Amino acid sequence: MGSDLRNATGAQVRSACRSGALTGPTPGLALGFVHANLVILPRDWAFDFLLFCQRNPKPCPVLDVTEPGDPEAKIVAPGSDLRTDLPAYRVWKNGELVEEPTDVTRYWRDDLVSFAIGCSFTFENALLDAGVPVRHIEQNVNVPMYRTNIPCKPAGRFSGPLVVSMRPLTSAQAVKATQVCSRFPRAHGAPVHFGAPAAIGVQNIDKPDFGDAVEIRAGEVPVFWACGVTPQAAVMQAKPPFAITHKPGHMFLTDLKDTDLEGE
Amino acid sequence: MGSDLRNATGAQVRSACRSGALTGPTPGLALGFVHANLVILPRDWAFDFLLFCQRNPKPCPVLDVTEPGDPEAKIVAPGSDLRTDLPAYRVWKNGELVEEPTDVTRYWRDDLVSFAIGCSFTFENALLDAGVPVRHIEQNVNVPMYRTNIPCKPAGRFSGPLVVSMRPLTSAQAVKATQVCSRFPRAHGAPVHFGAPAAIGVQNIDKPDFGDAVEIRAGEVPVFWACGVTPQAAVMQAKPPFAITHKPGHMFLTDLKDTDLEGE
Repeated sequence: MGSDLRNATGAQVRSACRSGALTGPTPGLALGFVHANLVILPRDWAFDFLLFCQRNPKPCPVLDVTEPGDPEAKIVAPGSDLRTDLPAYRVWKNGELVEEPTDVTRYWRDDLVSFAIGCSFTFENALLDAGVPVRHIEQNVNVPMYRTNIPCKPAGRFSGPLVVSMRPLTSAQAVKATQVCSRFPRAHGAPVHFGAPAAIGVQNIDKPDFGDAVEIRAGEVPVFWACGVTPQAAVMQAKPPFAITHKPGHMFLTDLKDTDLEGE
Repeated sequence: MGSDLRNATGAQVRSACRSGALTGPTPGLALGFVHANLVILPRDWAFDFLLFCQRNPKPCPVLDVTEPGDPEAKIVAPGSDLRTDLPAYRVWKNGELVEEPTDVTRYWRDDLVSFAIGCSFTFENALLDAGVPVRHIEQNVNVPMYRTNIPCKPAGRFSGPLVVSMRPLTSAQAVKATQVCSRFPRAHGAPVHFGAPAAIGVQNIDKPDFGDAVEIRAGEVPVFWACGVTPQAAVMQAKPPFAITHKPGHMFLTDLKDTDLEGE
């Protein structure tokens, strides 16, 4: 299934999810289309969360927010149904994971507001196009992610540390990566740090808090980017009575192209 | 008073407003500091408005949003009091202007959420620094503004047309202005149109909907930018039961410098 969808459109991937044909991770599918993080919250939590995203745009670049109860992401994916169009979801109650279904129709409520948030896959495609290697793709593992000691700006009931992803690069590659990623403010933008992990509170680079460790070769430094896991970590910490997110790696495919996320 | 404050800081201008010493317009004051549009709404209207801004970032670049009831813009102006720190306000009930006070302390409520929104003064300073003339400053009048036929993306109860400001430029100046303003995505960014006014629904360039007409000389084209009046027009159209805005030209001075609004 996966290989069939490599050159599919975002809409075709959504359709494969909706029919039940696709329940696996999305990296490598619908190349060139924007994959998005998904967070769904009740209406009375939505203002605080939107404000959290607005105050922390590097980890939380908002691409679309639905009207309460509307399951269609009208701006980034007209015709979509957020209840069925992801390969897999996580359902949370009071901050506890209760289920990982492939369809959340039975959980739907009229007060749910959905947030589609930019994802690092966008800039990774641009890095590869620019000849900058992406180690976790080479090693075929998940990107390593770390909680930092950099606090996000809190908003209402949401707070928490900045979570970062890491890619090892030579200094010349790091400069090129900074140039490339600066073009994508809506997909986490330029790196937030490079070099000494301890400077941002990362004690053991070989033990990521999320994802998998990757090799750092001689002459390379770890380069850190704001990560879309940040808003999910803030949701888990705030423990709203009810929330739905995508299952990690099982993203929402939009109709946007990666190039649409370039700044002006 | 005004000339004393030309080289003042944002905080000094706020203090002059708070003491009642300054009740006039802010253009030309605290040069290099960011002047902001202000919109204050009840909590139950705040999500829709924040979403309207998020969906329409060119006319509505959000710089700060307060917690409900908090009169301090903690991010852009720590120590500020939004009830007293502007030279003049407009108070609205059900979409009707009811008063233009210089202090809104007696109107304050525990459920009010305040929005500080980027303003064109930021990029105008950058234009002047780059040698691009700004006609309404030369003519010492208010910038001409027009309702267009370009709809904003609606959000909940908020909708309305894009309002644009206009500055006449030669084509070489327009290119330079586009380069300069592209650096300021949080202050309306690059122009949205140049040339034929009718193409965006502006029927008579000599009769602006807001502000004053300016001279367009031979060899110049009108260049149009998304304008911070757009969110105010959307608020007036939505007719919330209660709202406060700045009085036009009487802006909220922040601690941000114009250069802080450059993109990455």
